[in-house]
Amino acid sequence: MGVNGLMMQMPLLVSSLLEHAERHHKDSEVVSRRTEGDLHRTTLKEIAGRARQLASALTELGVQQGENVATMAWNNYRHLEIYYAVSGMGAVTHTLNPRYSPQQLIYILNHAKNRTVFFDQTFAPLVKGIAAHCPTVERWVMMVDEDKMPAELPTENVLNYEAILAKGDAGYVWPQFDENAACGLCYTSGTTGNPKGVLYSHRSSVLHAMVAGQPDGIGLCSKDTVLPVVPMFHVNAWGLPYLAMMTGFKLVLPGPRLDGASIYELLEAEKVTLAAGVPTIWLGLLNYVQQNNLKFSTFNKTLVGGAAIPISMIRALDALGVSTMQGWGMTEMSPLGTISKIQGPDLNLPKEEQFARIAKQGKALFGVDMKIVDEAGSELPWGGEESGELLVRGPWIIDSYYGGGGEKAFSIDDSGKKWFATGDVSRIDSTGLMQITDRSKDVIKSGGEWISSIDLENIAMAHPAVLEAAAIAVNHPKWTERPILVVVKRPNAEVTRDELLKFYDGKIIKMYIPDDVVFVNELPHGATGKIQKLQLREQFKDYQLPE
Amino acid sequence: MGVNGLMMQMPLLVSSLLEHAERHHKDSEVVSRRTEGDLHRTTLKEIAGRARQLASALTELGVQQGENVATMAWNNYRHLEIYYAVSGMGAVTHTLNPRYSPQQLIYILNHAKNRTVFFDQTFAPLVKGIAAHCPTVERWVMMVDEDKMPAELPTENVLNYEAILAKGDAGYVWPQFDENAACGLCYTSGTTGNPKGVLYSHRSSVLHAMVAGQPDGIGLCSKDTVLPVVPMFHVNAWGLPYLAMMTGFKLVLPGPRLDGASIYELLEAEKVTLAAGVPTIWLGLLNYVQQNNLKFSTFNKTLVGGAAIPISMIRALDALGVSTMQGWGMTEMSPLGTISKIQGPDLNLPKEEQFARIAKQGKALFGVDMKIVDEAGSELPWGGEESGELLVRGPWIIDSYYGGGGEKAFSIDDSGKKWFATGDVSRIDSTGLMQITDRSKDVIKSGGEWISSIDLENIAMAHPAVLEAAAIAVNHPKWTERPILVVVKRPNAEVTRDELLKFYDGKIIKMYIPDDVVFVNELPHGATGKIQKLQLREQFKDYQLPE
Repeated sequence: MGVNGLMMQMPLLVSSLLEHAERHHKDSEVVSRRTEGDLHRTTLKEIAGRARQLASALTELGVQQGENVATMAWNNYRHLEIYYAVSGMGAVTHTLNPRYSPQQLIYILNHAKNRTVFFDQTFAPLVKGIAAHCPTVERWVMMVDEDKMPAELPTENVLNYEAILAKGDAGYVWPQFDENAACGLCYTSGTTGNPKGVLYSHRSSVLHAMVAGQPDGIGLCSKDTVLPVVPMFHVNAWGLPYLAMMTGFKLVLPGPRLDGASIYELLEAEKVTLAAGVPTIWLGLLNYVQQNNLKFSTFNKTLVGGAAIPISMIRALDALGVSTMQGWGMTEMSPLGTISKIQGPDLNLPKEEQFARIAKQGKALFGVDMKIVDEAGSELPWGGEESGELLVRGPWIIDSYYGGGGEKAFSIDDSGKKWFATGDVSRIDSTGLMQITDRSKDVIKSGGEWISSIDLENIAMAHPAVLEAAAIAVNHPKWTERPILVVVKRPNAEVTRDELLKFYDGKIIKMYIPDDVVFVNELPHGATGKIQKLQLREQFKDYQLPE
Repeated sequence: MGVNGLMMQMPLLVSSLLEHAERHHKDSEVVSRRTEGDLHRTTLKEIAGRARQLASALTELGVQQGENVATMAWNNYRHLEIYYAVSGMGAVTHTLNPRYSPQQLIYILNHAKNRTVFFDQTFAPLVKGIAAHCPTVERWVMMVDEDKMPAELPTENVLNYEAILAKGDAGYVWPQFDENAACGLCYTSGTTGNPKGVLYSHRSSVLHAMVAGQPDGIGLCSKDTVLPVVPMFHVNAWGLPYLAMMTGFKLVLPGPRLDGASIYELLEAEKVTLAAGVPTIWLGLLNYVQQNNLKFSTFNKTLVGGAAIPISMIRALDALGVSTMQGWGMTEMSPLGTISKIQGPDLNLPKEEQFARIAKQGKALFGVDMKIVDEAGSELPWGGEESGELLVRGPWIIDSYYGGGGEKAFSIDDSGKKWFATGDVSRIDSTGLMQITDRSKDVIKSGGEWISSIDLENIAMAHPAVLEAAAIAVNHPKWTERPILVVVKRPNAEVTRDELLKFYDGKIIKMYIPDDVVFVNELPHGATGKIQKLQLREQFKDYQLPE
């Protein structure tokens, strides 16, 4: 290349988000429900000052640039301060998911060689249980007012957050360094094997926030009030803590209380305009609102992700004046890849048409490219009925796992482009609207066609006698695989194999209809309630299809 | 630094915008009024294909990476194709402002060593006049249908755009290179000296578009239809051609016809939602709409920049259902620095309060920092009455001029941060809302206070006997400078010096009131109609203030 542009060279750093907020949105509020029980109010200016103090104090304690510093915490202002202090000083904010098993947490803490772990007092019992197995940890920092420290501490070397912070210098200056430096670490657990780490960079996190903020992304302005119900230990609360500083909106952090009543109270009291969370949360909120015949005063937009949202929920939210957007992504994608939302002239479409579109996973945000491929890795066309394995690429999408592993997910195509396999099977329409039809490991590959296990299950579940159903592949000499349906009947309900297979007529093309139905008393479930299809396939591996 | 993040490394290139559009917004329309006279319709997919063809053809012609390739063109699809072909292949899109004098154009073409110049047929006479003085230019490419090429060409070595493009290969693959490479060049003319070049990088242009798209920026989504009246030769039409590909909105390009009737016709026929341009354009449009008693069907947002917008215009647009946002920036800032707009709960404020806020220059976008400084370069506080010289910094703000010059505008503060002096004098309120009060060279520095010449002139202009007024500084032994007012009276109107000075009572603090009034028959004006204050100060340099 010949010539470089002559514009200022300024790295995209997490600290640059905070510096912007401190100068240009200093009075924006951060409201937190604390584990101490009260509602705490502060401003971005105060957060910025305390983050500098904390960074200074951590430097004094010997925390190094590039070092992983762990948190086990709810959404609250201290967690936000840690995000910025740790990343801003050049260390790595490593958010631990406290819902992992103690064994997984011990594995992760050892793998990441954490020396410092911040924790909310709720998690003291967890710390007590794992501390002895975490030899790298030198200090456990309890995020609580100094006068609320319990008499009995969960382990040795427990420090108090406020006491540490008070020793720091608010005049600390954020160091400038390469924007490709790591800023965050989040482990993700597959169905098998140990959790794997995803190491975000300052660049990827800032670019992700810049795209998440767009009108075709989440679309937030400085006048919004945002409640991230999605935890800050779950892919950085979908990037909202970064977007908050970039945009200067008011942030409402719900702490440990995520039930319908508590969320409703915050939405109303703090005049929230957008809340973000998984479908389960909205189910709890909707139940509470409907049972008590309540309304929303300001809450009118929700971002739902983490799992597919049922149309019935989109409809129920709409009836309460809340428009839904669905975000799809992964820990490996920072997380946003696509957003499904209705705006502009599409707001004039029939409501049910709008809901059906929102229920799909959406269009790619700028920066993210996606494609669907067949088993040979060849790109499949968009706009047809064909579904294929979904591959993605982009500047906030994983290049490799921290410490290795999962290499099979990465591939390079003929033009030299690197892609990450999401593990999802999808269809993309001619406008670029993507719909996930199955998980790769669950899809049934029959005579070159990919049959969605989810589609088969949804039809079965619509039958009044079916309590639960799983469609799985069994081996077939001619078609390689064929689907069978494993069904649990409702108590006192009856349905025969033939009746259930006939129920598929006209609802799906003939060759997708399962070859057989097996009735069982129960299906195997994992810790999060999902059907363990791997286990089911193992169970039926010698199953002989009827002639 | 210890550790880099493990996210994909993908440069932010202008071609990545086009690749995104081609895959994810392929059917979005581009409608152009052509110099051929007709209305032309195409899609982003077709634009992408033709841009690749053009890049391939230019490569064959010997255009090199890093080379400046000039355009003298209106807003139309061919200009858009050149933007992407030239920058995408690694050369530099150099937009020439055809409103410059032939002497200035010749200076610029020689300074930038252009070998290729694209031009719309409208500018054939201009090419004819300057070609002989541009020894570096090897080919002049006329942007017109092949069968519309005139019999008489303006100079030697004139090629046809479509003929060149037809030879290119649509299978051309965009090269990948460092995002800091130059992608665009735009010269800006000060009041003195030769025009100076601003050399944009791929990184700066893409980041600028990402911020311009935010809801606190221009705020555009894929469902919008956007009419950039602001020319593509004027700071890249404020970045809209880049934002178009990122967002996938419908783009309406008005070509050479910028009168009220022609713009109105496009707004209605193409269902435009947002139009962007300088105040003069809206004046023409408003006159046409009011005189013909018309309404707007879809047009409801306007972005105004380039000059301060009068409140009367904001009010008139609002009455027609169009909300105004004001953008402030400079060629040296890509151009966006601040945006002033009303959204969220502020829409409930009294209208006149909203208009007054829009009339200020606005809040800094993420990435842009700004400060006001006194004569010693010390930062002044925000929220007070003090105004100071406005300095800016950010990743899409100039680091140095192309080929040098203007070094005085750049400074480094005590913390090592580089700043660019805008040449404006501003006030910033406690919320970060910035208001330009004067140009640095026009402000009157009196006893440590900075008196806005604009404020003094606005008061004088409100007097019924005043046709035109200019406030300038004259030397003063004690106060260094004091303001005097130079006034042209309206024909047949009378007002005395003392009456006019008394007219200031209560409208401004006492020490800001001019020391004297001088009546003249006319004031010196520049080519664009602005009062030449430099010349006026020269004229009054020996002026003796009354005792």
